[in-house]
Amino acid sequence: MKKWSQSNRKEVLRAHVFKYETVDSSSPNGDKSGVFDIVTCLDWVNIVAIDEDDQVIMVKQYRHGLDDITIETAAGAIEIGEDPLHAAKRELEEETGYISNEWESLGSVKVNPAFMTNTCYVFLARQCRPEGKQCFDPLEEIEIEKYSLERIEEMLDSGEIEHSLTYLSLLKYLRLSA
Amino acid sequence: MKKWSQSNRKEVLRAHVFKYETVDSSSPNGDKSGVFDIVTCLDWVNIVAIDEDDQVIMVKQYRHGLDDITIETAAGAIEIGEDPLHAAKRELEEETGYISNEWESLGSVKVNPAFMTNTCYVFLARQCRPEGKQCFDPLEEIEIEKYSLERIEEMLDSGEIEHSLTYLSLLKYLRLSA
Repeated sequence: MKKWSQSNRKEVLRAHVFKYETVDSSSPNGDKSGVFDIVTCLDWVNIVAIDEDDQVIMVKQYRHGLDDITIETAAGAIEIGEDPLHAAKRELEEETGYISNEWESLGSVKVNPAFMTNTCYVFLARQCRPEGKQCFDPLEEIEIEKYSLERIEEMLDSGEIEHSLTYLSLLKYLRLSA
Repeated sequence: MKKWSQSNRKEVLRAHVFKYETVDSSSPNGDKSGVFDIVTCLDWVNIVAIDEDDQVIMVKQYRHGLDDITIETAAGAIEIGEDPLHAAKRELEEETGYISNEWESLGSVKVNPAFMTNTCYVFLARQCRPEGKQCFDPLEEIEIEKYSLERIEEMLDSGEIEHSLTYLSLLKYLRLSA
């Protein structure tokens, strides 16, 4: 199987958290062609954070897309040029006040290859200690909640945890721990 | 924790696969407010399809956002008013030519509550048989590949499978099977 060829990629608009472009794309033998959406966000990082009592540190916050309150792993955007692990350490400390000396990569995924370009990196932080400094973005309001791994599994099954990338990150950790 | 209040929601544009709106949102005590992006897609469905020889049926296709070829579970958009299970059966048959009489829900997730509104439903189809009729969308080119569950696990670890929702769907299935 061969890639399609893209041409005439052009920016349509820049929103707050993404850039929207269109691109003309033609199949390898030229029998199919069309205009496709491309949505570019910064890369993202998700952090499965475990404290010294084996509690999973989660963040509770209002989410504007869903118009509801969610319980998620600490997460955020990787700044341009920033190392993913650096972003993970920064986001965990900013959102939760926790820091860790025991970091491990749980891999990465492409958020949605159909029309999005970005990558989500997943990290595990063990033995987290509340010795950092919380520092919210100007439009963030976050509460920290800690749960046993058994309770996390219940919340995955009940739908109390529902953000796809939080869900994925926690399943990656459960698979590692099994 | 209380929800923020949204007002002045307005459509900015309709792209091919999403609608982009902005909304003004204020925190419960009114000390924070801003304009936020809302991206609305149709709901999606992902299908973990297992054939009568315990092979996992995957689809290989060029993806325009990533500009590369991916290996994914069968998946697609749920038409407005369509039942998610109906969409799952339809997408599996259209993309792979396989049908099944043994369907099971693996739950659903919110794709990205931060700025997206939609839900992704995950289904498991067992004992799939190649007795349906493939019917690609006009701009789809798909090849079917079948893998043992052991090989799927290798591909999750190696990054050969990289779409976040495919990854999540397969981890949900592995957790169920464990």
